[in-house]
Amino acid sequence: MFEPPVQRLIDEFARLPGIGAKSAQRLAFHLLNAEEADARRFADAIIEMRVSVHLCSRCYNVTDREECSICLDLRRDTTVVCVVERVQDIPVIERTQQFRGRYHVLGGAMSPIAGIGPEQLRMKELLIRVEAESIEEVIAATNPTLEGDTTAMYPAQLLDRKSVV
Amino acid sequence: MFEPPVQRLIDEFARLPGIGAKSAQRLAFHLLNAEEADARRFADAIIEMRVSVHLCSRCYNVTDREECSICLDLRRDTTVVCVVERVQDIPVIERTQQFRGRYHVLGGAMSPIAGIGPEQLRMKELLIRVEAESIEEVIAATNPTLEGDTTAMYPAQLLDRKSVV
Repeated sequence: MFEPPVQRLIDEFARLPGIGAKSAQRLAFHLLNAEEADARRFADAIIEMRVSVHLCSRCYNVTDREECSICLDLRRDTTVVCVVERVQDIPVIERTQQFRGRYHVLGGAMSPIAGIGPEQLRMKELLIRVEAESIEEVIAATNPTLEGDTTAMYPAQLLDRKSVV
Repeated sequence: MFEPPVQRLIDEFARLPGIGAKSAQRLAFHLLNAEEADARRFADAIIEMRVSVHLCSRCYNVTDREECSICLDLRRDTTVVCVVERVQDIPVIERTQQFRGRYHVLGGAMSPIAGIGPEQLRMKELLIRVEAESIEEVIAATNPTLEGDTTAMYPAQLLDRKSVV
């Protein structure tokens, strides 16, 4: 409907989850009317994130270094690990300022219906870490859903020392 | 809360109109998990639009050429002009397939409260076009609001030949 370069950006916005056709158009025109520097900074932020961000080699949080800032923080208790489903769950727990250990991102929750078993998650990596890092306590902070609870119980059954939140 | 490159992209999304903090995070993680090529295509679409898109020298629609595809379309009636507030209004009218003339984008609506008078809109450019292009009919397709109606009446008072939709 619009000239090709405008329509292309509208289509790109519309491809994002939760962005409908009307919102996509509104966002594209916002960037069209925005300062050149603002639009460029947005594009650069996308590229920079894709180039520099990968998963922490220890906990699978996102980071632009070898390990994430939480794993690198020497003040944190390395004997306690909080198991979460997704990277996005970490800042939620961090905001409470109540947890001073490290994290372990599983990458989802177990769901027999969706065909997601322990092999599809970073369950083996968790068990290896518990041994290798002399972890004394594993806290499951999976979602309060059937899948989340199933996911929390799996390592609990394998590990004899545990604590479930 | 997140590592800097991730937080930067979340902040950029949150700056967009109608995107809250939660949506911004969801969109940033979508792009983080998307295919590298998809994320890059999105960033390229932003840059490309900003580099190539400007306003049509005749009607002020957006275009990547000197004039927009509607103004360049030889099959269209050059004696009729439909006046709209914003570029986004054009595809709405185009979809009806009932209008075969050209457009004129004012760039907004008159609003004494907001300090927007005819000088802030492309009103003078419209009057010049009516003379220069021998336009016989001017159709106002401004929004059905107080501002839109005021905007429609302004050129109507200056032009003796008119038709108001």
